Amino acid sequence: MEIIIAKSAGFCFGVKRAITIAKERAASGGEIYTLGPIIHNPQAVKRLADSFNIHPKKTIEEMRGGTVIIRSHGVKLQELGAATGKGLNIVDATCPFVKKTQDLVGELTREGYAVVVVGEKEHPEVQGIMSYGSADIIVAASVEELKDMTRKKKIGIVAQTTQSQERLQAIVSFCLTMASEVKVYNTICNATSIRQRESVELSRTVDCVVVVGGKNSANTRRLAEICRSIQPRTHHIEEASEIDPGWFEGVERLGITAGASTPNWIIRDVIAKLEQLAA
Amino acid sequence: MEIIIAKSAGFCFGVKRAITIAKERAASGGEIYTLGPIIHNPQAVKRLADSFNIHPKKTIEEMRGGTVIIRSHGVKLQELGAATGKGLNIVDATCPFVKKTQDLVGELTREGYAVVVVGEKEHPEVQGIMSYGSADIIVAASVEELKDMTRKKKIGIVAQTTQSQERLQAIVSFCLTMASEVKVYNTICNATSIRQRESVELSRTVDCVVVVGGKNSANTRRLAEICRSIQPRTHHIEEASEIDPGWFEGVERLGITAGASTPNWIIRDVIAKLEQLAA
Repeated sequence: MEIIIAKSAGFCFGVKRAITIAKERAASGGEIYTLGPIIHNPQAVKRLADSFNIHPKKTIEEMRGGTVIIRSHGVKLQELGAATGKGLNIVDATCPFVKKTQDLVGELTREGYAVVVVGEKEHPEVQGIMSYGSADIIVAASVEELKDMTRKKKIGIVAQTTQSQERLQAIVSFCLTMASEVKVYNTICNATSIRQRESVELSRTVDCVVVVGGKNSANTRRLAEICRSIQPRTHHIEEASEIDPGWFEGVERLGITAGASTPNWIIRDVIAKLEQLAA
Repeated sequence: MEIIIAKSAGFCFGVKRAITIAKERAASGGEIYTLGPIIHNPQAVKRLADSFNIHPKKTIEEMRGGTVIIRSHGVKLQELGAATGKGLNIVDATCPFVKKTQDLVGELTREGYAVVVVGEKEHPEVQGIMSYGSADIIVAASVEELKDMTRKKKIGIVAQTTQSQERLQAIVSFCLTMASEVKVYNTICNATSIRQRESVELSRTVDCVVVVGGKNSANTRRLAEICRSIQPRTHHIEEASEIDPGWFEGVERLGITAGASTPNWIIRDVIAKLEQLAA
């Protein structure tokens, strides 16, 4: 069995940067928290807690003082306010591309656009982005979700950085029928589209795909979805221990890819186990 | 044979307005010209020449003095300049929706957008619109025509007023992959899309369609194309004399529609002839 690894598998720029910032801060000691897990990967979060004393908390209220690291997804403006109010030391590791999207939502809102965010309403990145707009900001992952939208004077559109171009295009097409002016900032991160495109190409040339990354990671789940649509023998795992040798019966070429929040050491573990099986 | 007439067949607001302005001006006498035919309908142009002494000329140079009526399509800025330079009396009957599109191209250009006009490069409306942008303004009727476009910082998009929403949507989708900021003014005129939509619905319910309007009218040709894609028995005629009774063999329901530049008297003539055949 030949194993082919997608070039773009694993940590994106924003996640790598946030982890580096967190570890550097941890070197100075003290109580260090993140609001929610710093990345959507349980194994990486556990390692940061065990080796660097960085602990995720669900709310600002649960933090006793010390330092809060804002993860790459960003947070809601209100949470930033609460952290400041509580006198916490704030280290902002929001991905610069997410920060840009937050700023653009603020700008579009000030310019009088009805703002549409292409994304998953419950995703923390989207929750943060939304907080920079007005109360009636609209979030949609599909045209179907916009079916009750009324006609607007002008619509401003941004996207969650990990959305697909196709979703953005479909929603823009719809919005063109709902307003005479539509201003779009394509805030989809290249890293995501490059990873998705490479994974599509990989899926076309192999008999089986293994996608590595947190089950709670939207971008990894989306990656698995995309690969599965081309190669039905696609398996989404968080770590090497989940690998079932039965998956590879008759497989001659196996492809491996990984989400933006999957650490290299987990990918390496998975590859090592698969190489053992392939030998 | 039952005859069904599309509600929105015939003159749009802009054409009706331009003809009214021209006739009112003609009442005051003097030499009256239009730059090109005032509408894309040879029969209507002939009637205006015969009854109102309004004569189309191909260029400003051919006009000896007097009054030039700017037709609903608008003209190039340079032509407006030439007419002023020659001391002609200018009566601007440019459709307000076209005028708005010209102004938006100027605005987008000043704001630093690379401007894309969705439309037919050779159409006089587009030629006029283009003249309000910079020399490198891009015109495209399909994504195929944009295949050599280089990546831009920001793209501003407008459309010829008679384009289809689908074409605009396809080009916007493409431009979203060519710039991180895309500002779209959907300048497609409702009259056109309503007429097109009604004609689509009409074509679905009849056995044969007659589309009335100038063979040199882009919007009428497009209307015929759309109807034909649904009902292959679609005939595009300019006037009643072209009707061939053989077209209606076995036809139980016949639909009639007409372009934005088709005068009512021509539509009435066609209906009268068809009613004779149906009797």
